[in-house]
Amino acid sequence: MKKADIIIQNCLILPMDGKSRIIEDGSIAIENGKIAHVGKKSKFPSFKGENIVDGHGKIAMPGLINCHTHLPMTLFRGIAEDQPLDKWLIETIWPLEANLQPDDVYHGALLGCLEMIKSGTTCFADMYFHEGKIAEAIEKAGLRAVLAQGIIEAGNRTRGERMFRENVDFAKKYHAYANGRVTTQLGPHAVYSCSPELLTKVKEAASALNVGIHIHLAESKEMAKEIKEKSGFSEIELLENLRFLSPNVLAAHCVHLSRREMTLMAKHNVKIAYNPIANMKIAVGTAKIKDLMTLGLTVGIGTDGPASNNSLDMFESMKVAALLQKLHYHDPTVLPTETALKMATIDGARALGLENSVGSLEVGKQADLILVDFKKPHLTPMHNPYANIVYSTHGSDVDTVIANGKILMENRKVKTLNEDEVIRDAEQTASNLLARAGTLR
Amino acid sequence: MKKADIIIQNCLILPMDGKSRIIEDGSIAIENGKIAHVGKKSKFPSFKGENIVDGHGKIAMPGLINCHTHLPMTLFRGIAEDQPLDKWLIETIWPLEANLQPDDVYHGALLGCLEMIKSGTTCFADMYFHEGKIAEAIEKAGLRAVLAQGIIEAGNRTRGERMFRENVDFAKKYHAYANGRVTTQLGPHAVYSCSPELLTKVKEAASALNVGIHIHLAESKEMAKEIKEKSGFSEIELLENLRFLSPNVLAAHCVHLSRREMTLMAKHNVKIAYNPIANMKIAVGTAKIKDLMTLGLTVGIGTDGPASNNSLDMFESMKVAALLQKLHYHDPTVLPTETALKMATIDGARALGLENSVGSLEVGKQADLILVDFKKPHLTPMHNPYANIVYSTHGSDVDTVIANGKILMENRKVKTLNEDEVIRDAEQTASNLLARAGTLR
Repeated sequence: MKKADIIIQNCLILPMDGKSRIIEDGSIAIENGKIAHVGKKSKFPSFKGENIVDGHGKIAMPGLINCHTHLPMTLFRGIAEDQPLDKWLIETIWPLEANLQPDDVYHGALLGCLEMIKSGTTCFADMYFHEGKIAEAIEKAGLRAVLAQGIIEAGNRTRGERMFRENVDFAKKYHAYANGRVTTQLGPHAVYSCSPELLTKVKEAASALNVGIHIHLAESKEMAKEIKEKSGFSEIELLENLRFLSPNVLAAHCVHLSRREMTLMAKHNVKIAYNPIANMKIAVGTAKIKDLMTLGLTVGIGTDGPASNNSLDMFESMKVAALLQKLHYHDPTVLPTETALKMATIDGARALGLENSVGSLEVGKQADLILVDFKKPHLTPMHNPYANIVYSTHGSDVDTVIANGKILMENRKVKTLNEDEVIRDAEQTASNLLARAGTLR
Repeated sequence: MKKADIIIQNCLILPMDGKSRIIEDGSIAIENGKIAHVGKKSKFPSFKGENIVDGHGKIAMPGLINCHTHLPMTLFRGIAEDQPLDKWLIETIWPLEANLQPDDVYHGALLGCLEMIKSGTTCFADMYFHEGKIAEAIEKAGLRAVLAQGIIEAGNRTRGERMFRENVDFAKKYHAYANGRVTTQLGPHAVYSCSPELLTKVKEAASALNVGIHIHLAESKEMAKEIKEKSGFSEIELLENLRFLSPNVLAAHCVHLSRREMTLMAKHNVKIAYNPIANMKIAVGTAKIKDLMTLGLTVGIGTDGPASNNSLDMFESMKVAALLQKLHYHDPTVLPTETALKMATIDGARALGLENSVGSLEVGKQADLILVDFKKPHLTPMHNPYANIVYSTHGSDVDTVIANGKILMENRKVKTLNEDEVIRDAEQTASNLLARAGTLR
């Protein structure tokens, strides 16, 4: 009889393994952090389990993957709403960020990790400052992440150079941190905030370090126009000229792209993080995801930072991701439920270069999975599990979260973090930060 | 010392009373189903309370008002997704509806009531068949509603006449049912499905009965075009010619309206139910809510039927309501948080003609209110209660629901319904219905 650390029994399984399978009355065995078996309970080999989890009335599926966020911005949730982007940044966000201490980032990130665990996200891509502190929060929380320290040159070459060096140091130091749960990328903020010279250096460093690159791309029409006027090239053409584009580039937003730019992105197999809620909230427009996917591009879903969403709930983002595409193309058949769930799981893993280790429930992959309790009025009846997951489930329906084979939450009780403490520390941190920033203004 | 049935203490109150007040450390007294006092705890008169509810860490606000739904369609949740509207109706929904028995409607409605209580909705406007059964479900659940039995003539005058008579009978019989919690309206389905003669009869009967009218208006471009081609008039002009428009008309959707039509609606103070999620999901377009509100029109928010959303969670609809307007007008300042919450509370009450009895927390109004537990990671920190309620709260954060002064849910335990039984009965009903409809197809 084989040994397993955890056996989940009697659940409905959405493996997201490319076979469109729905396994009823299924079981999952986890051993040494990996998935040892997935299948019908009746055909399940004998396992001697240390820990038996009853999956009755629950859907087992891969943990959700959030492809774009700025986690410590939990601290700024709701702080200056319904404002034009520049006013919001100049009057509120930048003054606060100028006062951010590493410990603030840690407490903000820990709050974000707690929110993600409680809403079924097991892996995310982040770009922010003091990213090492975010890595520490992840280590503690038990999640998986791909982290990039942001580089904002903004016309200041010295500053750009300093941030570039810090980012490279971070990428070296934290790659494979937290038992391999943390990997790193370089994080040039955007084409409008980094010079061509700096972007070239980033690209070369990323190749040398063998890490990916996380960048904001074509988010607002105004910025795209500014780049064109300055350089004579569109944003993607400029990157093409710099030989910046590659399958290791994770491009957030991609809202304002010409047909030619989309084709260039497809040629280089650039990965896309689609952020429907933030794009709507900041009113920048709708990414043409259907066109991008038709060209063969891989699209994951991001929440964006919690100050511009204001939530890290990937179930909500999945629903709005599908709704927004239907609206944009005036076609209710666009982005059907299974595709939306694929984007939030296995395609998200592909976007982060982690498709061989997570994103689906397959033997040999790391055990990053969640159980959704569907014995709820809003998930009744269950005519179609994909539809109920994408259109009707909220993060609060997630009952159990497992990452790297470790149970992070069971029966909605988080095991790696003290909830009250994390909330209290984040409240105190935000309050102190406001007081400091207020004094300076 | 005054007597109160329920006293809620130490909560943060959003009264939505038109004064933009946020009352910290507040208390609310409820006596005989009505609000007897709202205010700062420190200035609270002495009440002798029968039932003291601790509101610490909670926001007290009016119960949410869902201005447009077809409640028993919970039974069809997720049943045929991502299809063109006509295919969805012809191949799935209409065959199922043709087999609907009154008891099916009852069990579907009860499931919907349960979902609404668990997500903080205390009042809704419904249009469907066998509406008396929905009234019975509401009586049991303890909610408040404005109900209209649907009239679909669809070119069949006899059928139109029969449904009209049934609707009038229903409106008489159930007005002020369930201790006054149920009021009624007439429910001509839409301009494209009811003849001008029938619409005129409906208008006259509504005047005679002194009840409102609930109708679908300008939902799809195709239907609007068809009406114009057939009658020579746009949808609203046609209704103007029939003298159909009045402040007692509740018009759902209002997506495809010309400037002239909007002005006509404003002239007659027609009430609007904005259904952002269903409009996106069915891909009909975006209602120009900013323009309609600028003209002085009253706009409430609806979820639409649970088969075209697929949720009755008004927090979700409130968020998407705001996001969609920002996107449509390319302006993040459009539909700010307080306005969104107004639409889901007091303006919803106005849309249903209930603004004198519910929609805000004011002395003398019926006690329809909810407590939201904000000691959650995704609601931390609380820089701005409006922002946290609109952008970050889910229905599952609602802790306590009170309607007509009666506690329907406390600590998320529903008191009026047996949750397991309601879920089981609805599952069984849906399953039996599918079996019956399948045999007939």
